[in-house]
Amino acid sequence: MGNKVISKAVINRLPRYYRYLGDLLNNKVDKISSKDLSELMNVTASQIRQDLNNFGVFGQQGYGYNVEFLYNEIAKILNLHKKHNIIIVGAGNLGSAIANYSDFEKRGFVIVGIFDTNPALIGKKINDIEIMDFSRIEEFLKDIDVHIGTITVPKAHAVDVANVLVGAGIKAIWNFAPVDLALDEDILVENVHLTASLMQLSYNIGKDNLNK
Amino acid sequence: MGNKVISKAVINRLPRYYRYLGDLLNNKVDKISSKDLSELMNVTASQIRQDLNNFGVFGQQGYGYNVEFLYNEIAKILNLHKKHNIIIVGAGNLGSAIANYSDFEKRGFVIVGIFDTNPALIGKKINDIEIMDFSRIEEFLKDIDVHIGTITVPKAHAVDVANVLVGAGIKAIWNFAPVDLALDEDILVENVHLTASLMQLSYNIGKDNLNK
Repeated sequence: MGNKVISKAVINRLPRYYRYLGDLLNNKVDKISSKDLSELMNVTASQIRQDLNNFGVFGQQGYGYNVEFLYNEIAKILNLHKKHNIIIVGAGNLGSAIANYSDFEKRGFVIVGIFDTNPALIGKKINDIEIMDFSRIEEFLKDIDVHIGTITVPKAHAVDVANVLVGAGIKAIWNFAPVDLALDEDILVENVHLTASLMQLSYNIGKDNLNK
Repeated sequence: MGNKVISKAVINRLPRYYRYLGDLLNNKVDKISSKDLSELMNVTASQIRQDLNNFGVFGQQGYGYNVEFLYNEIAKILNLHKKHNIIIVGAGNLGSAIANYSDFEKRGFVIVGIFDTNPALIGKKINDIEIMDFSRIEEFLKDIDVHIGTITVPKAHAVDVANVLVGAGIKAIWNFAPVDLALDEDILVENVHLTASLMQLSYNIGKDNLNK
């Protein structure tokens, strides 16, 4: 693979390949032609070939792709062959939903800590993980190697929380607060802006005049 | 505006403009130059001008943009000047989080019904909305005009739920299940794939070798 730059569009598509290949594996499918994969995923066979060629993965003529091999290759590209420890800051509804979401752990994302400032929540458990006082976060991060900090606090507190996490050594932030965190460039940030996502639907509803 | 086709990239950026302009309005800022808006949002002034020119919105030389006018124009483009009734199917953690998220109602997205099949949940309330039996969904949709159906059920049930919603007249689906719904082309679907979002972080962590 070397240092070839792969476009963000391709990387964005990889989780979908990974999901389909995982389903095929679960259904004991050993191999699949690019034509069949293309029909299953509703993308062109040429798109599939182009995407996978980026990573030096080629289907064999007359055989197609080995499902398990391809699944494992994509896992390596997406860095899913390693476990990633995650913490969640904000033990409200959204933080609880994420802590309880079983799909993450299956993919190697392990929630190792949940933090809040609300005394009514501290000490309670979500999915067997005790909610800790956010004031203990630096101490906690000294002992455990955490790759991803999830922010599910209200908008007004998100920037402060992000700064504390980064100050304590967190290098990647999964941010659900509807705010731009404006962190140093070497900090990775992935935003999930739910209201913005709804607005895309709203725009398309308007465009289609469904809502007249 | 007419029927000019606006790229998805521009539409994707509009909610962020809307958010910043809303914050400016809350802070009683009447007008802003494209230079100041550009510094605030950390995008080039040229990008801002290009984006807004798509909608026939031009800043005045020596004055800049009228914040309230621009905010309202973007609201119209995103179809936020109308209320959108939403239902949620799946009253688990994620459905509850969405039902409790106050930001949506502020933007005109009103949750009018929550449905589940679990007898232990039916009759309980989330954010003052009673959880109803999903078997009553068609009856419910006869009486109330619902624009968006939110799917927060487990993956295995998501396709069935989507088909029931579409059969009952829903034209837009906000899907949180990690599955492709494969609905008719005239049905709008906006996916929020949380695991895929985490995988983008994981990929970037691997790329940056933060995780060695």
